[in-house]
Amino acid sequence: MSAQVTPLLDQACLIVHGPDQPGVVAAVAALIARNNGNIVSLDQYSTDPGGGDFFQRVVFHRADLAAAKADIEADLAGTLEPFGMNWTLTDQSVPKRMAILASTSDHCLLDLLWRHRRGELPVTIPMVISNHTNTADDVRSFGVPFFHVPSQQGPDKSQSEAEILRLLEGNVDFVVLARYMQVISADFLQKVGVPVINIHHSFLPAFIGAGPYRKAKERGVKLIGATAHYVTEELDEGPIIEQDVVRVTHAETVKELQRRGADVERAVLSRAVEWHAQDRVIRHGNHTIVF
Amino acid sequence: MSAQVTPLLDQACLIVHGPDQPGVVAAVAALIARNNGNIVSLDQYSTDPGGGDFFQRVVFHRADLAAAKADIEADLAGTLEPFGMNWTLTDQSVPKRMAILASTSDHCLLDLLWRHRRGELPVTIPMVISNHTNTADDVRSFGVPFFHVPSQQGPDKSQSEAEILRLLEGNVDFVVLARYMQVISADFLQKVGVPVINIHHSFLPAFIGAGPYRKAKERGVKLIGATAHYVTEELDEGPIIEQDVVRVTHAETVKELQRRGADVERAVLSRAVEWHAQDRVIRHGNHTIVF
Amino acid sequence: MSAQVTPLLDQACLIVHGPDQPGVVAAVAALIARNNGNIVSLDQYSTDPGGGDFFQRVVFHRADLAAAKADIEADLAGTLEPFGMNWTLTDQSVPKRMAILASTSDHCLLDLLWRHRRGELPVTIPMVISNHTNTADDVRSFGVPFFHVPSQQGPDKSQSEAEILRLLEGNVDFVVLARYMQVISADFLQKVGVPVINIHHSFLPAFIGAGPYRKAKERGVKLIGATAHYVTEELDEGPIIEQDVVRVTHAETVKELQRRGADVERAVLSRAVEWHAQDRVIRHGNHTIVF
Amino acid sequence: MSAQVTPLLDQACLIVHGPDQPGVVAAVAALIARNNGNIVSLDQYSTDPGGGDFFQRVVFHRADLAAAKADIEADLAGTLEPFGMNWTLTDQSVPKRMAILASTSDHCLLDLLWRHRRGELPVTIPMVISNHTNTADDVRSFGVPFFHVPSQQGPDKSQSEAEILRLLEGNVDFVVLARYMQVISADFLQKVGVPVINIHHSFLPAFIGAGPYRKAKERGVKLIGATAHYVTEELDEGPIIEQDVVRVTHAETVKELQRRGADVERAVLSRAVEWHAQDRVIRHGNHTIVF
Repeated sequence: MSAQVTPLLDQACLIVHGPDQPGVVAAVAALIARNNGNIVSLDQYSTDPGGGDFFQRVVFHRADLAAAKADIEADLAGTLEPFGMNWTLTDQSVPKRMAILASTSDHCLLDLLWRHRRGELPVTIPMVISNHTNTADDVRSFGVPFFHVPSQQGPDKSQSEAEILRLLEGNVDFVVLARYMQVISADFLQKVGVPVINIHHSFLPAFIGAGPYRKAKERGVKLIGATAHYVTEELDEGPIIEQDVVRVTHAETVKELQRRGADVERAVLSRAVEWHAQDRVIRHGNHTIVF
Repeated sequence: MSAQVTPLLDQACLIVHGPDQPGVVAAVAALIARNNGNIVSLDQYSTDPGGGDFFQRVVFHRADLAAAKADIEADLAGTLEPFGMNWTLTDQSVPKRMAILASTSDHCLLDLLWRHRRGELPVTIPMVISNHTNTADDVRSFGVPFFHVPSQQGPDKSQSEAEILRLLEGNVDFVVLARYMQVISADFLQKVGVPVINIHHSFLPAFIGAGPYRKAKERGVKLIGATAHYVTEELDEGPIIEQDVVRVTHAETVKELQRRGADVERAVLSRAVEWHAQDRVIRHGNHTIVF
Repeated sequence: MSAQVTPLLDQACLIVHGPDQPGVVAAVAALIARNNGNIVSLDQYSTDPGGGDFFQRVVFHRADLAAAKADIEADLAGTLEPFGMNWTLTDQSVPKRMAILASTSDHCLLDLLWRHRRGELPVTIPMVISNHTNTADDVRSFGVPFFHVPSQQGPDKSQSEAEILRLLEGNVDFVVLARYMQVISADFLQKVGVPVINIHHSFLPAFIGAGPYRKAKERGVKLIGATAHYVTEELDEGPIIEQDVVRVTHAETVKELQRRGADVERAVLSRAVEWHAQDRVIRHGNHTIVF
Repeated sequence: MSAQVTPLLDQACLIVHGPDQPGVVAAVAALIARNNGNIVSLDQYSTDPGGGDFFQRVVFHRADLAAAKADIEADLAGTLEPFGMNWTLTDQSVPKRMAILASTSDHCLLDLLWRHRRGELPVTIPMVISNHTNTADDVRSFGVPFFHVPSQQGPDKSQSEAEILRLLEGNVDFVVLARYMQVISADFLQKVGVPVINIHHSFLPAFIGAGPYRKAKERGVKLIGATAHYVTEELDEGPIIEQDVVRVTHAETVKELQRRGADVERAVLSRAVEWHAQDRVIRHGNHTIVF
């Protein structure tokens, strides 16, 4: 009855990027063919076909992928080295492990947990960490562990961040900040070692920082929005994965903007998480290529 | 065949605004009834029913409006004075006179001229002024006078602005900057004495100033937009009338963003012009109430 | 922290409809003023100011509304009778009682329960009735009673419908079919005596009946949608309250259309429920006026 | 200043479709590489990687394409024959020749002419044919020939269709019906021998046939739309290329729906024309693949 993600047994996702040059596409396609793969989907993009940066995502089916993966990787290393291309090969039957950090707001958190239960997100969720306890029962009702790590007062977050890092270490492939209302330190970002996705409650670069709905009301905009982006050291400046907006009028109060915005936030974040989990998002400087 | 604006003979538009208080709506409705008006549409908004600012737009039909207008105005003055309300009464059969200032880009300019010819905009267009000549033939083919006023180099625009002011003086009720690529001086704004509407090629407050599509490409946004606003002394900071956006991806070049954005610009500007011409937009500090 | 619906103590909602004629607006406004009400919001619409149908929704604040309501109603009856207008006056501090009928799909059901818990819907939910049991635990975790009423095989639904009617009788003000996969009989509709809102998984009137996502795939549309409407005896032909769409491409499978459509369905249904609960929707023949 | 379509000198567009099978992508990529082509963009889609239909669009740059085209075609014939694939190779520096058929409405017609003048559509426009004369001057002001072919009364359109066919024969690569208000006969379609694109003023399959805005008003929909599709013998049943919608309310009259819909019509048609002209649209039964 539910619209589950198709099981991706024996499907590999190959990401290739590097300097654009003739022959790369043919070399990759030939490699997949000689390794008995059948291409399921293929997307590519070049910033400039005459010497720019090249990005490719190929999903292919290969019987007994797990057994063949090492050989394919060896072939890739040999084939793509002369081109100077970077590549990664992932087995799509292995879901990424996603930790969620949250605060008191539950709309993004519950939407991710519910979509996961429906089979819409190809991830496992080993834990939810919150600096508040109000969502603990809801989270656990989905069969997901909940850890409470209170925030410290003042600028020194090092102790709570250290506790979060201990929980995450070795257990997750990426982290989602689902309206987590603490600024992440540069030190945390460096130590966590996996991508961190945030949802910001404005259409960036408008209304950076705290209180975007209040700022939107003050400026009198006719659209409010939300932005999912990778977290970098500079607040709200990381590569944007997805954005969307909704129309508003003079008549909405700040509270009503928050409420209408919450629907946009959860929709935008769920798309960004799905695309990241499917290896559809490639970071390129401060940009993303989304296939 | 065409979807013309209904002729609004004998229709008056009353705008009332001031401190919200009990009895204003009843007083206005009673006034219209005793002056033999029949209400066609009524919109109102209060920033706070308990002592905020109140805004109302009432369109009513009154046979022989032109003859009765002075009496209705006298009644309004007497009726609304005790409430301390501001009001304006306009005869909707008298179209507003709109001047268009343009530069080389023709998409917003031609869209306004087309819509006017189709009967979609309740305005007359006494003139188009441009600091370039490339659109002269197109403009004149619509039967609209075209004046070329070259821009001066450097910061001193006083001579060309003076020439524009001489052309506009007494001839127009509002001015539209249809991608006019010159910054308007505070002195011009003060002297022109009528509302000036601008179309900015971004979803403000993102990407204020020059080159918003280039900035959008650099930031890697997934939506680009346009904003119509009243011009004030501070660049791109005036009250927003209307905004809209369109989705883009990593693959669009700056030129392609400009092209896709042009469609949003002309759509947003035409809505703002229509609403302004119909007295649907009330300025309130740096905000607009759009009925 | 949550964006709760403002408590609407002492706020009344007056709906007036009937033949358009001069003086109605003034009569209503004067009535509210003399009953010490302060108008909070006012919307009106006429199908034709020269003799069409008139619709008005006025929300006003009146201290001690509960005590004054009978007097105001008496005044309304006397005032509006000469105009031949219909009217209803509701106390907005009294939430409507909403029953939800569901089947196995949980997306619309859970979205309504979440929004209700967040304080977004001005209703109480006395019961959820389903012809399946899979959502029982989820529903009860929100503190809402769950009743299982299995469907009969074949065309004779009279026994299960009778059981549902016994549960609803006297307990609810309206019923929501949240992807309830049984066709409601004309007999049920007549006996239930309260409005019934359905969410149909297509942009009606396209794809009436069963399997709209499959039909959409077969027709090759580039947009899929959802429609919330009041249920009438003719399947999928009732007055439309709200609709929305989402873009799709050739690449989506029927399952993926179902999944993307589910997001539209729950958004559209939640808006329709909110507006109905706030007395914003007026039925007029097979149309709705939505203020 | 204008956002012109990049000149596509020495760029070829290869369309491949047929039964999906391992090795096709590699064979095509190898062929392009050995013919000294550099892939600019590549899109592909399979209805089912395990034995469905496969579609691919590859744009590649090849110095001196005109001189090399015959050799590449011979290579394609030899390479793809064993796979049983269909293919076409087009030189993107050769714009398609587009005829426009129109009636009295000018919004779609003028929008196409204007976009063409801006350099947004990679086509030439050898003629506009209309069964009315009102747009003659406008069309000719764009430097485009205008031919008036009156429609016959009654069901026998054979004489006017014959005249249109004589004008088109040998002169055009595709035909656009820009709100041409005559039903095309099956005989015409067969004889014209090139694709015919129509814009229908509803979101098909809703409101097939005449008067869709009136039907939309009668049904009380909250969205109106437009659909661009290839014309087939069955009215409004051809493969859909593009669709879009705009929100409306109870308050819009049929005339206002027409006006708001006109903006959607011209936007949808211009996208369909651009995509068709760029060989982005592949017909597949009654569906389209749009890359």
